[in-house]
Amino acid sequence: MPRPTAPRQLQVLRLSMAHPGDLSALAALLDAGRVRAEDVVAVIGKTEGNGGVNDFTRGYFTQSLMHLLGERLGRAPAELQRELPCVLSGGTEGVLSPHYCVFLRGAAAADAPAGPALAIGRAFSPPMPASEIGRWAQVRAVAAAVRAAMQDAGIDDPTEVRFVQLKGPCVTAARAAAALAAGQSVASADPNRSMALSRAAGAFGVALALGELADDPSLEPALLSRFDLWCARASVSTGVEVEANEVVLLGHSPHWRGPLRMACEPMADALDLPAIARVLTRLGLQATPQLGAQDRARVAAALVKCEPDRRGQVRGARHTMLDDTDINAQRHIRAAVGGLVAGALGDGRIFVSGGAEHQGPDGGGLIAVIAEAAA
Amino acid sequence: MPRPTAPRQLQVLRLSMAHPGDLSALAALLDAGRVRAEDVVAVIGKTEGNGGVNDFTRGYFTQSLMHLLGERLGRAPAELQRELPCVLSGGTEGVLSPHYCVFLRGAAAADAPAGPALAIGRAFSPPMPASEIGRWAQVRAVAAAVRAAMQDAGIDDPTEVRFVQLKGPCVTAARAAAALAAGQSVASADPNRSMALSRAAGAFGVALALGELADDPSLEPALLSRFDLWCARASVSTGVEVEANEVVLLGHSPHWRGPLRMACEPMADALDLPAIARVLTRLGLQATPQLGAQDRARVAAALVKCEPDRRGQVRGARHTMLDDTDINAQRHIRAAVGGLVAGALGDGRIFVSGGAEHQGPDGGGLIAVIAEAAA
Amino acid sequence: MPRPTAPRQLQVLRLSMAHPGDLSALAALLDAGRVRAEDVVAVIGKTEGNGGVNDFTRGYFTQSLMHLLGERLGRAPAELQRELPCVLSGGTEGVLSPHYCVFLRGAAAADAPAGPALAIGRAFSPPMPASEIGRWAQVRAVAAAVRAAMQDAGIDDPTEVRFVQLKGPCVTAARAAAALAAGQSVASADPNRSMALSRAAGAFGVALALGELADDPSLEPALLSRFDLWCARASVSTGVEVEANEVVLLGHSPHWRGPLRMACEPMADALDLPAIARVLTRLGLQATPQLGAQDRARVAAALVKCEPDRRGQVRGARHTMLDDTDINAQRHIRAAVGGLVAGALGDGRIFVSGGAEHQGPDGGGLIAVIAEAAA
Amino acid sequence: MPRPTAPRQLQVLRLSMAHPGDLSALAALLDAGRVRAEDVVAVIGKTEGNGGVNDFTRGYFTQSLMHLLGERLGRAPAELQRELPCVLSGGTEGVLSPHYCVFLRGAAAADAPAGPALAIGRAFSPPMPASEIGRWAQVRAVAAAVRAAMQDAGIDDPTEVRFVQLKGPCVTAARAAAALAAGQSVASADPNRSMALSRAAGAFGVALALGELADDPSLEPALLSRFDLWCARASVSTGVEVEANEVVLLGHSPHWRGPLRMACEPMADALDLPAIARVLTRLGLQATPQLGAQDRARVAAALVKCEPDRRGQVRGARHTMLDDTDINAQRHIRAAVGGLVAGALGDGRIFVSGGAEHQGPDGGGLIAVIAEAAA
Repeated sequence: MPRPTAPRQLQVLRLSMAHPGDLSALAALLDAGRVRAEDVVAVIGKTEGNGGVNDFTRGYFTQSLMHLLGERLGRAPAELQRELPCVLSGGTEGVLSPHYCVFLRGAAAADAPAGPALAIGRAFSPPMPASEIGRWAQVRAVAAAVRAAMQDAGIDDPTEVRFVQLKGPCVTAARAAAALAAGQSVASADPNRSMALSRAAGAFGVALALGELADDPSLEPALLSRFDLWCARASVSTGVEVEANEVVLLGHSPHWRGPLRMACEPMADALDLPAIARVLTRLGLQATPQLGAQDRARVAAALVKCEPDRRGQVRGARHTMLDDTDINAQRHIRAAVGGLVAGALGDGRIFVSGGAEHQGPDGGGLIAVIAEAAA
Repeated sequence: MPRPTAPRQLQVLRLSMAHPGDLSALAALLDAGRVRAEDVVAVIGKTEGNGGVNDFTRGYFTQSLMHLLGERLGRAPAELQRELPCVLSGGTEGVLSPHYCVFLRGAAAADAPAGPALAIGRAFSPPMPASEIGRWAQVRAVAAAVRAAMQDAGIDDPTEVRFVQLKGPCVTAARAAAALAAGQSVASADPNRSMALSRAAGAFGVALALGELADDPSLEPALLSRFDLWCARASVSTGVEVEANEVVLLGHSPHWRGPLRMACEPMADALDLPAIARVLTRLGLQATPQLGAQDRARVAAALVKCEPDRRGQVRGARHTMLDDTDINAQRHIRAAVGGLVAGALGDGRIFVSGGAEHQGPDGGGLIAVIAEAAA
Repeated sequence: MPRPTAPRQLQVLRLSMAHPGDLSALAALLDAGRVRAEDVVAVIGKTEGNGGVNDFTRGYFTQSLMHLLGERLGRAPAELQRELPCVLSGGTEGVLSPHYCVFLRGAAAADAPAGPALAIGRAFSPPMPASEIGRWAQVRAVAAAVRAAMQDAGIDDPTEVRFVQLKGPCVTAARAAAALAAGQSVASADPNRSMALSRAAGAFGVALALGELADDPSLEPALLSRFDLWCARASVSTGVEVEANEVVLLGHSPHWRGPLRMACEPMADALDLPAIARVLTRLGLQATPQLGAQDRARVAAALVKCEPDRRGQVRGARHTMLDDTDINAQRHIRAAVGGLVAGALGDGRIFVSGGAEHQGPDGGGLIAVIAEAAA
Repeated sequence: MPRPTAPRQLQVLRLSMAHPGDLSALAALLDAGRVRAEDVVAVIGKTEGNGGVNDFTRGYFTQSLMHLLGERLGRAPAELQRELPCVLSGGTEGVLSPHYCVFLRGAAAADAPAGPALAIGRAFSPPMPASEIGRWAQVRAVAAAVRAAMQDAGIDDPTEVRFVQLKGPCVTAARAAAALAAGQSVASADPNRSMALSRAAGAFGVALALGELADDPSLEPALLSRFDLWCARASVSTGVEVEANEVVLLGHSPHWRGPLRMACEPMADALDLPAIARVLTRLGLQATPQLGAQDRARVAAALVKCEPDRRGQVRGARHTMLDDTDINAQRHIRAAVGGLVAGALGDGRIFVSGGAEHQGPDGGGLIAVIAEAAA
């Protein structure tokens, strides 16, 4: 894609929903002419399901979104769905509030502050064969897609990339059976492990593209075992409905204008309030201990990855998340870390997602914030 | 009870458990002669149940505790249980860690810092008839017990009371039937509402004893309706196994020695990180934003009450706790507020309890911390 | 509506879904020309949500269905939704299998067996004001709609009505507030109680229309209190998305042809296997103890209402459904009764719905089966 | 153990509990002299926990039982616990009722019907090293314990064994670490898989002792893979608190007297109502379709093993148990199969346990019933 000559501008709208099929807030903005459907380049949101295999709030929201935009654009919803990344995390435990961030890419406003400013890029890898998922081939495919997304965003310097949201495929039982029938092996035929491996390969792929990791296939066994290897700018989810690696990349580019900036910090564990303070400080926001009203109004989005520590302890104190037959461990940790981040920001509209393998330190994760620069 | 002439000292041990029947940490201290069974005056803890009606981890822990202490004291466990307050909150959601605080009352150590220091007192009201539960009669009975506990603690000035933990009775279906058969009415025959009414009456009773509320029976309808009336030093739980109002009172007394101090702050809502900072500051602890290792070592206990906001929003953002058929709303809020407080303190051993009606602001609650004074 | 002169025929298709947005089975039949979209008069199904307030699988399925049929009929999905009853019960606990029954009404096939045969009728009451919900006005409105549905079905004799599926409105918090602001009272402002009252009024309304109950407004207090009053041919659900009372009525009519017949039996409690045997026997099916393959193939649909006994016991043995903080009581009972009915029928595709107030005996419910007459 | 010359008699008491610490029914019988504490040889029960790793109702009940019997026998509870098998299954989903069966072994009453009659035997294997769990060494150890229990029961003919309840150890994380440190391998270090392997080895061990399987170590890989190998008389549970294989064996012996008889049948799947009918018929009980009051009074205990079919379907219809993030699959299946069995027996006091690997057909399980012979 040739680099555009006209400066571009990213807008991020954080909208609330009354239920997972409620796109009325976006519809109203489209109706009022304040948003153009063709400017929507990605949606990242939290829906109020359980976040597990049988969480259908993600599918419901996606169907509703694609119908809405498809109608406005005169396009088939199913076709649009293959082009427009819609990354959803189910589970609004505790104080988390169902919401979605709409990323709009358009020509810079005449009075937009000069760049460098926050830019967005997208890319899709080719569909992954089941035999490559969770292996080095996926690591490389993700890395290539991340590089393509950097180019799409107009970012040359990997250090200027702030955050990569990836949605990767996994090996369903059906895909595993087909691969085996075709004489191919799969990294794991267990769907849950396959999802974890795909997240791990995604994190490695981002690290590879950003120059944090060598392209060394002998590292394949490090997936899900060497948790000292991690990338704090990668946020990966997987979905059975996806066949390619879908990348939404955010970073600073001199070719973009506007007030938006982004920062990202690793979280050492589920109690890492200092990391939250650091990411805010880097954006010129003051949490003392909580953002004030003015700073709060500057925040456009907050994205968090976290994990119930697999060793059963947080700072030496036993936790019970992993042994709870009643509440899934990911629901526990989203509630806890969501409560912490929401408390620092003074706002429950936080994207908090589990499954943070290699996405930040083991037992911790990462926090990324988009905010307007101080005037 | 005559005031003791010899100065006393409170110790608080915060011990971990491997499961709800695990008292091995206390047993080891008893075995080693580091704790005397007769000094144990109260236990407050968090067990890893669901915190609901069918949470039997509280009964299991209590039985184990009473067997342990009964054996050491040569007393029947059932008898001991009627004298020793054991207040448990089920539910260690998220990063919360199962633990129990043992309150020991003994003669002050020779080298104990001079008072005023943190003191403890206990008292039991007479058994409450079902017809009085959730009514002004209970408010007055609680107030009388609180005053008795102040006397037991050697505290004359209500403003020196820092925290009152109350365990109150409720109207079970059986008690309601018996009352009705005897020609008496009950405030509510619905067990859940009866528990809430009992908590409300308990909070009012504490407020009455502490001089924050008038002894005005016309306020009875304010129970569970006038949520602008609250006491930020009252923490109330109810139990079907209890017939009296059991009071554990903590506050500063010139007759006690030692390094322990306590502070308590109302929390305006589930995001009130500033309140957490304030309570720590009052104890000379610095959360910038999190307690450092030295300050953390000074904390002996942290106790929190909280609520899923009944209006369905936190600071204008919709939450989904009240409509979740899969996870009880109290489990949600404990996880979220527990995550926030644990993040500020750097420690998951927090007593977080739901059911905060009139115990702090509506939709919020309170936080109390016991810590050693700086050397 | 004038009675059609040409004989009609009902077809019931029982289709499986892979997830709540999966209408592919119906789409394939439409594509193949085996089903005409304009013949679809009602859909009753079970989706794999939790069956509670936050079960969005019902909305997701409904949206998917209306999009599919709307596209085929050239009509707006939202408009279609106001005309086509789609009654869904969330929760496929245990062996229950997600499925939906499509009711098709068309001209009788030339070789269709002569009637009387199973007929279907539909009717909608006018939208109910919030002030009338759960009151005698709703009882009468439902009765009028049931009579209209009888006429639509071509059934004159109320004893020939076999089953009435009703979907009624409830008082949401918003509707309650609006009613109060307009100076009106509501039967209950508590959404859960309002839903129960609406189901109760619906059951009374069916009973009134079928001649089982007098039109006596002094019976209004009997709603949710006199559980000795019940109708074993009424199955009622409520939904926040509904404003009118939507009726789907099934019964035998001489104006219809075809092999389908229906029977319905009250269930005395959750263990009432004899009732299941009775309803099958009335249709000429033999469960000895389970339907054989041939009889199983004749079954077109099975619909069940049930309740966790509110007195805490089933036949003198304590159950724990009502006190379980982890699993909603309705999920418990659907799993248990679903297991029982599925065992007798040898098939997990059973519509099992909770909330059976006045719909069959207290603590029990009812079972209805549609089957082809023996050749 | 020398065979006793005096005829013995088994009594089975089925008692209800109000909560998992409630042994009052047994205490009352002991107080009244109707039960002698020294006659209690085993307890099998269902408690109202979640049946998972964090189900502490089993420990609570066990502690309460051992305290009660220890007090009556003048023995330490911990010591008694190592001798008296107490097999508990958590989870009283749906209509299942919390209860426990007390097995009493004593001299035959003078007027007891002549044998052969139902006999009971117990045996414990030596403690299993972690390295042997889930391997052929465990299969053989279980077989040896089963043979010892046959001898204890006075049963020579393996075909007269009706039911073997086994409680086996598993590899906890701590035991795995210790074994690895000692240079030993474990079959699996994953606790959940280790539990399944231990159940599988237990079932194989019972089959070996009963002559249904060859002592062929090359079959070790068949554990958890060859599900065509199963024993319909083996019911196995595992517990982290157990180190040995504990066997409770029931069967018919000419050396015993009394009216009790037992039968056991494999269940082909979760809908196998005919199997339930068969097991009742073998005991002379008539379920047409449900036991009548007289037959019901003859039933002393019912024990069931079952599984959510791991292939995701029951008789071709998709089930959703395995993909439910909110409710554990074992809770689903217990509710469903419990509902079916309770419906056939007319009683919710059924022991229903999941984890049925190799204990009955794949996807099914087994049902065993103890009843008095017809007079």
